[in-house]
Amino acid sequence: MRITVLGTSASAPTKERGLPAVFLEYLGEGFLFDVGEGTQRQFMRFGRSFMKITHIFISHYHGDHVFGLPGLLSTMALYGRQRPIHVWVPERQVVYVERFLRALVPSLPFSVEFHPAAPGVLFSTEGYSVSAYALDHTTDCLAYVFEEAPRLKADKEKLRQYGLHGPVVGRLKAGECVDWRGKRICPEDVVYEKPGREVVYVADTRPVISNVAKGADVLIHEATFLESERQMAVEKKHSTAREAAEVAKALGAKKLILFHFSPRIDDLSLAEAEARERFPDVVAAEDGYTIEI
Amino acid sequence: MRITVLGTSASAPTKERGLPAVFLEYLGEGFLFDVGEGTQRQFMRFGRSFMKITHIFISHYHGDHVFGLPGLLSTMALYGRQRPIHVWVPERQVVYVERFLRALVPSLPFSVEFHPAAPGVLFSTEGYSVSAYALDHTTDCLAYVFEEAPRLKADKEKLRQYGLHGPVVGRLKAGECVDWRGKRICPEDVVYEKPGREVVYVADTRPVISNVAKGADVLIHEATFLESERQMAVEKKHSTAREAAEVAKALGAKKLILFHFSPRIDDLSLAEAEARERFPDVVAAEDGYTIEI
Repeated sequence: MRITVLGTSASAPTKERGLPAVFLEYLGEGFLFDVGEGTQRQFMRFGRSFMKITHIFISHYHGDHVFGLPGLLSTMALYGRQRPIHVWVPERQVVYVERFLRALVPSLPFSVEFHPAAPGVLFSTEGYSVSAYALDHTTDCLAYVFEEAPRLKADKEKLRQYGLHGPVVGRLKAGECVDWRGKRICPEDVVYEKPGREVVYVADTRPVISNVAKGADVLIHEATFLESERQMAVEKKHSTAREAAEVAKALGAKKLILFHFSPRIDDLSLAEAEARERFPDVVAAEDGYTIEI
Repeated sequence: MRITVLGTSASAPTKERGLPAVFLEYLGEGFLFDVGEGTQRQFMRFGRSFMKITHIFISHYHGDHVFGLPGLLSTMALYGRQRPIHVWVPERQVVYVERFLRALVPSLPFSVEFHPAAPGVLFSTEGYSVSAYALDHTTDCLAYVFEEAPRLKADKEKLRQYGLHGPVVGRLKAGECVDWRGKRICPEDVVYEKPGREVVYVADTRPVISNVAKGADVLIHEATFLESERQMAVEKKHSTAREAAEVAKALGAKKLILFHFSPRIDDLSLAEAEARERFPDVVAAEDGYTIEI
């Protein structure tokens, strides 16, 4: 599973930073969270393929999070995309996103399937689920949670103790009890459930603690302001870097990635430093920041 | 007068090249020709101020030439713009551009004044005029011609001969005859008309020769394809680099700037070389290419 933070600026780009877009690659699927203006070019700049996108999740209908959508889809068409793409948008905003897309791109050679997103599980497969929860911004805004399904693993030490090997291990993982060398062995004897990995994407918001996001392996959280501008964060319904760290701590996250910085923040080490006072494993992402988990 | 070619790619950006946008700065005014996705960031990258834009001219309503408009205007608002901005669009396409802009940006703290553009003079001031002429593309597409008014200049050598200096020179340039050291001197004795500078912007088109563009100091012309792909240029209603050079020659242009290259052209020296066989003073512009005239 690879996460690439393609754009880290808030509201407007800067010379160094593009607008919000985070790309999660997982077993042949590609999940793009937000699509600020210039996202297609950020894919190129950082050597990622936008043709691999299968789902797009829009946190909210503010320009800096969606203006890159029509160009991205047009360029996919130019490069021959035919398979459908799924676009999730907070439910009351679907009509606006569809309207602006159709105004710009009347037709595409592939299907763009819009889905209304609301708090709860959006969809799930055998391997993972994607959920949303409500944030606290100036308009409807959703956090998205990608959660891998728990996986059954055989405890290697126990397999050795029983002398188990071969297809019988698969049967145990499938839930069967087996007779093996005169003993009856059941799944609970050797099989355990390994929790799936969890990635949480939190765009524009005041700090929100949600059970849905508990225990995230990676929390990607906005940090529009520094603590010295807390008042502005409150007024504009954003978070400071320190507040993002407090959220990470409250959620029991393993790692925190800060992004969505005001263009006025030149030196990201300030954001990182004030967050680290509350939460140790934090990085203030530059464009292109990549992590494999 | 300074021209900056902000984006030089056609249809889709590449890692190195942004989408079409050319910025002409002239005596406190700023004329932007086309505004592909990412234009606001190209301004930042090349140290130009988008707050100086007074007029935007859209060649035609295709995504790669307009998708940067909503983000650009939104960012202007963020940075406190209040004065109106004028946007010229081929007349039958105004409704679409307005519609898509309003769908994305319902309100702005400054006025966006849309003007229908058609072949002929669009507007003129004492100092310059902007005209348009029809191109030959798959949809209505206009070339734009910025033409400085002719300026009256006093011939320095003749001033010296007559011993003329001071306010009397201004009176001569204003059209008065003057009595000077016992002689009657009239404007035609010392004043001549210097033609204004002319810049022509030609986006997507098959080659078109227009009298309106004759004698351009700078012709900025699309060169989507190389001559080896002439057939594609014909089918898709674009020009090859060599064809652009032939247009420059037929128009008697002084300098040719090629831009709007297919993403498949890696090596711009090929475009430049084939154009130079037809027209000597040519440059295949990289993003950020700047010329002062």
